[in-house]
Amino acid sequence: MTISKGPQAFPRSEYLRRLAAVKSEMARRGVETLVVSFDRNMNYLAGYTARTAYVPQGLVVSMRQDEPTIILRLMDTYAAHYQTFLVREHVIGYPEALIGNAERDGYDAIIDFLQETGAASAGLGLELANLPPSAVDKFKARLPNINIADFSNVVTWIRTEKSDLEIAYMKEAAAITDAGIRRAAEVIRPGVWEADAAAEIVAALMRGTNGKHGTSVANFWMNTSPRIGASHFTWSEDVFREGSQINLEIAGVRHNYTVPISRTFSIGKPSERLRRVHEAQVNALDAALSVVSPGRTCHEVAEVIYGTLAKHGVEKESRCGYAIGIDWLESTASIRTGDMTQLKPNMTFHLHLGNWLDEDFGVMVSESIRVTESGVEVLTGTPRQLFEL
Amino acid sequence: MTISKGPQAFPRSEYLRRLAAVKSEMARRGVETLVVSFDRNMNYLAGYTARTAYVPQGLVVSMRQDEPTIILRLMDTYAAHYQTFLVREHVIGYPEALIGNAERDGYDAIIDFLQETGAASAGLGLELANLPPSAVDKFKARLPNINIADFSNVVTWIRTEKSDLEIAYMKEAAAITDAGIRRAAEVIRPGVWEADAAAEIVAALMRGTNGKHGTSVANFWMNTSPRIGASHFTWSEDVFREGSQINLEIAGVRHNYTVPISRTFSIGKPSERLRRVHEAQVNALDAALSVVSPGRTCHEVAEVIYGTLAKHGVEKESRCGYAIGIDWLESTASIRTGDMTQLKPNMTFHLHLGNWLDEDFGVMVSESIRVTESGVEVLTGTPRQLFEL
Repeated sequence: MTISKGPQAFPRSEYLRRLAAVKSEMARRGVETLVVSFDRNMNYLAGYTARTAYVPQGLVVSMRQDEPTIILRLMDTYAAHYQTFLVREHVIGYPEALIGNAERDGYDAIIDFLQETGAASAGLGLELANLPPSAVDKFKARLPNINIADFSNVVTWIRTEKSDLEIAYMKEAAAITDAGIRRAAEVIRPGVWEADAAAEIVAALMRGTNGKHGTSVANFWMNTSPRIGASHFTWSEDVFREGSQINLEIAGVRHNYTVPISRTFSIGKPSERLRRVHEAQVNALDAALSVVSPGRTCHEVAEVIYGTLAKHGVEKESRCGYAIGIDWLESTASIRTGDMTQLKPNMTFHLHLGNWLDEDFGVMVSESIRVTESGVEVLTGTPRQLFEL
Repeated sequence: MTISKGPQAFPRSEYLRRLAAVKSEMARRGVETLVVSFDRNMNYLAGYTARTAYVPQGLVVSMRQDEPTIILRLMDTYAAHYQTFLVREHVIGYPEALIGNAERDGYDAIIDFLQETGAASAGLGLELANLPPSAVDKFKARLPNINIADFSNVVTWIRTEKSDLEIAYMKEAAAITDAGIRRAAEVIRPGVWEADAAAEIVAALMRGTNGKHGTSVANFWMNTSPRIGASHFTWSEDVFREGSQINLEIAGVRHNYTVPISRTFSIGKPSERLRRVHEAQVNALDAALSVVSPGRTCHEVAEVIYGTLAKHGVEKESRCGYAIGIDWLESTASIRTGDMTQLKPNMTFHLHLGNWLDEDFGVMVSESIRVTESGVEVLTGTPRQLFEL
């Protein structure tokens, strides 16, 4: 039997709006057909979220057609029928014989499709940064007379300005993020295994809140003394101890829209150094929030943060945030010196005050924000504080 | 302050043994220096598990030196000091200015290192399949007189034969996998939200068992009616219902060693079709286990499975399994027709009987196995059955 369409995360009109923005870029760059291979961009343009990017796949956007065509491993086409807005004829499966096959793979199926439909005779866009070099070679060898334009990050840039529908999911995700921090404050205690506390926090993020479940498990960073100078560890095989510091960075997720937060926890009285750096960070975050508004640049926001930290005698080398949306990070605008991206309404960022000041010392506090028509909205409701447990 | 070394997953001798195998391949291929950029291979050769592969990074293996050199974003070097066996001088950080920089990035830092140490004058190995095309172009442009050899998948192939130390972690992971299935059988009930059950199962996998915690969260696949013809969904925003079928594929993890299992659950009496296909699959799995032994080929095992299924009138298009180890799948040997890889002791596989027979019908049962000196060992202890709840 054929599978029916399941509940859709967004109405068809939302996808068509996004596709119109992409097609406008295609027209500008003289591209008639675009192969989107970055899974987050496929998610954005078609609603496909199954985790199948470990095999070749692509979404073919044509100037000649309203709806794109998704090309997947055959066994994954059922997921696409169920969850994307695409009509059945626009979901194409390639056979299992192309899996683990050194000669012909899923990229050949995509190229076959381009050849059969004559789709790319007037310019082909590829997300080169998301293709293995061997695939790029195949496109060039098998489509020798076609002009290839690099579309790396073009769709990702279109994603930066969210629709109100996307913002609604991000607010639901933010409420889940808050629930995760609340749970963390309950379960982080001396003598508790880090893994057990992490399990409770992740479970809270999955269960969700307000009748809205978490829809996937995001990254989970938990760096406990003596690993608080590092930033990308998860839990260790140890227990929490009296006097330990915990740097926690978690995120709630709704339909892949991910809203991160960082908070620092201290079991017992925090050290003077921790208090001082944390206060500097909160002040810098407050100062940043007071300047975020449409027309300002990422650079200006970063300068306010670096300036405020400097007044407190705190240095920071790393950037102060990045665009967020589908699957945490968007590789587009950064809150950093020299990034002249202008803020626009419904851009969303993780403003991240992470200071890893020593190999064995670091402090974190952050907010996920939305740029509004006139200023800024913090998406989460968690207090901007150092948690003393 | 500098951070001390933390607990090591493996002794130095284990890493040197793995590196010796890699160097033997380098010698065979006339390569003096190898840049390992695939994060799972960096994990294998140095013990680095922090999740930082979203920025450029590499492990430089030189024929001239016992220990490799790891090159990371500066903020991630603390993690490397803490958790790898490398001496401090072999952990190199590149500055934050190379993050989100279109001109110069972390690959330039790696190339700088190669130039400064004159490391690659006699042949450079690159894992081309794991590098973006722009990085490959950089290596070629900045090292124009150097012979580049493609090392894609070479280290991954070396990983296929596990040491006894690796097998010990896989057995710990397998016990956690079993705990996950036990929890699933307790919490999957009509009226329970899929997300809530998934949270309980993931929490069980994180807490671990026998005093050994799960060390990270693996993929979690849960396909419930009517999505049981698909294979790569997670939980949905629905409740389980009387008569629902649940295809669950989960894995326990110890130090990134991942041991997956698939089981099918039926709430209430299973349909005749489900029973029949499941029985065929169990018979095929039993038949496969009876032939796995050193010297046999993946092809032979697959043929036994396809043959047994055919006797039951069940067709299967997809492969019947794949090599496993660090982070679930190793892209090397597959249990498929035509894969003439010879089985050797301590190779490990996920023998996966997944039959997605219709868009709305599929059944799963699997075992993670180790090839022994004389036959096979199933790593998990979960009964090979259809779970009726």
